[in-house]
Amino acid sequence: MQKGRASLEFECPPLIIGAASVAGKKEGSGPLGRYFDVVERDDMFGADSWEQAESAMQKQTFQLAMEKAQTSSRQVRYLFAGDLLGQLIATSFGVEDLDIPVFGVYGACSTMGEAMSLAAMAAAAGYADIALAAASSHFATAEKQFRFPLGYGNQRPFSATWTVTGCGAAVIASQEAAKKGKKKPLAKITGITTGKIVDIGAKDSMNMGAAMAPAAFDTINRNFTDFGRTEQDYDKIITGDLGEIGRRILLDFMGEQGRNLEYIHMDCGMMVYDPDAQDTHAGGSGCGCSAVTLCAYFLRKIQSGEWKRVLFVPTGALMSTVSFNEGQSIPGIAHGVVIESV
Amino acid sequence: MQKGRASLEFECPPLIIGAASVAGKKEGSGPLGRYFDVVERDDMFGADSWEQAESAMQKQTFQLAMEKAQTSSRQVRYLFAGDLLGQLIATSFGVEDLDIPVFGVYGACSTMGEAMSLAAMAAAAGYADIALAAASSHFATAEKQFRFPLGYGNQRPFSATWTVTGCGAAVIASQEAAKKGKKKPLAKITGITTGKIVDIGAKDSMNMGAAMAPAAFDTINRNFTDFGRTEQDYDKIITGDLGEIGRRILLDFMGEQGRNLEYIHMDCGMMVYDPDAQDTHAGGSGCGCSAVTLCAYFLRKIQSGEWKRVLFVPTGALMSTVSFNEGQSIPGIAHGVVIESV
Repeated sequence: MQKGRASLEFECPPLIIGAASVAGKKEGSGPLGRYFDVVERDDMFGADSWEQAESAMQKQTFQLAMEKAQTSSRQVRYLFAGDLLGQLIATSFGVEDLDIPVFGVYGACSTMGEAMSLAAMAAAAGYADIALAAASSHFATAEKQFRFPLGYGNQRPFSATWTVTGCGAAVIASQEAAKKGKKKPLAKITGITTGKIVDIGAKDSMNMGAAMAPAAFDTINRNFTDFGRTEQDYDKIITGDLGEIGRRILLDFMGEQGRNLEYIHMDCGMMVYDPDAQDTHAGGSGCGCSAVTLCAYFLRKIQSGEWKRVLFVPTGALMSTVSFNEGQSIPGIAHGVVIESV
Repeated sequence: MQKGRASLEFECPPLIIGAASVAGKKEGSGPLGRYFDVVERDDMFGADSWEQAESAMQKQTFQLAMEKAQTSSRQVRYLFAGDLLGQLIATSFGVEDLDIPVFGVYGACSTMGEAMSLAAMAAAAGYADIALAAASSHFATAEKQFRFPLGYGNQRPFSATWTVTGCGAAVIASQEAAKKGKKKPLAKITGITTGKIVDIGAKDSMNMGAAMAPAAFDTINRNFTDFGRTEQDYDKIITGDLGEIGRRILLDFMGEQGRNLEYIHMDCGMMVYDPDAQDTHAGGSGCGCSAVTLCAYFLRKIQSGEWKRVLFVPTGALMSTVSFNEGQSIPGIAHGVVIESV
């Protein structure tokens, strides 16, 4: 059911019946290390190139998510997935063995929000009994794609983030399909708020939190308006990878509207590393960042009932090295997903 | 309603209430020249870089499509769009002024099929009264992204295709929303067949028709099986950009199954240029290729009732320069959309 300008409320909320997270060594040594299903000690994931490593990580995550949901690739009707690389190559090679019809999606680091939104829409409409939503990133592929060759060992400003090596996948089922399963679902998706592109003219690719915060602000506000809610209706409002600086901007913007998000706002990018011990500066980033944090940590909190309703808002900075080198700005986008305990 | 393994049949088929096509100079001089809404004489589209040119072309196409559908950007609920460039930058900058919630999609040259599938799903489920589906490509941005700097003037093998400079956009409405309009819809979307990734190990980026033909074969076969149809149930089966060589492979594969597609198969890539006069070798390609050919030409044939039912199957070759240079294969994907006269 359409709500307001950009939101949907699902009358029969689709259910998350399984989720998996696979992360790299550095992420495994961080504060969330013990929550990941797999911490791979070899960042090459047994492959020959970084890109193939990211694909191998995706494959492992999909298999695990389906196992945990007690389902098989034959039962998964559609796969919605993406990554940060040009032409989504990590995903193309990550999903090809699964033999599942695929919708490739791209929303930069907001990709998990976009994939979950579309998977939830498909499940709620009866288009898919079971759909898979996933996103991945890999530190080495992202550095190669967007920044400098790793061998340079170049210095990074404090506003820079560290791309998470990780993949998160959620298995989303219609209510009917979930009833057939033996396990209690982890959570339900009761609504979504789809982001529009917000471009404030930010141009610093080493400060992407500042580029994305206005988009997060826009989507959160839109969610409040569309659903007639306030920050008090959520136990947590979770952004993707704003980092320290982006969080400050978001809270300031919200403060100007008389809203205090200080205590209920969390940012995946600020949770995945220990900034003092791990030298990650403003925090973690990449589409894997919000994906693994949701699948490893937040879904547990929701499943246990500790949190009843959460607004999950992965945030993306829409840029390529071409657009950046040509002097274009870095527009932001943020996709909101309302996740509730069952 | 789910049909078979990969298809949906819409009980209340969403309607295409408007479509627009904007193409470049070379395309304007080709066989379809007189059908395009706009043939832009300046391939820079008044912008400072090729990438911005592609974004400007998108913007122009969206505006025109909405005008022709007698709708406004405020009435369009969701936009599904993509292009060929890394991180979809042509789309990010092309759609940002519209202020419409955006789902970025990537399926290489199959993107128009993916965008239309998702827009149709959204409209049919009541998620959007009106949704926009679009895809674009630009010869100069694609050459820069995938091949050689234009200034090299390098030679091209006969199996190579020429990336179409063009953008096509379709305005897709629910039946209720379409009823409110004054104009008769152009066509209806009665079903979709979503492609899976098919990788036969092709490695020649100058012969992408061969990489994509098996995916087209798979999706068309899947469509026949899922809907219980044969080639006789379609007036035309239209692939995206297989070109001469890909078409031959598709027809051979089909022939081995005892199916003769010789007379009902058309390929957008083979229609957009005059191969003798325009030196385009195997044909046109790029996500703009199938998008403009559909929006400019095929929809007229369907609207006039000359064709009653068409299977539109844009085809994509999933590769990047990174995957290619690392010696990986070029997997293919093809998304099928069943379009019928109203």
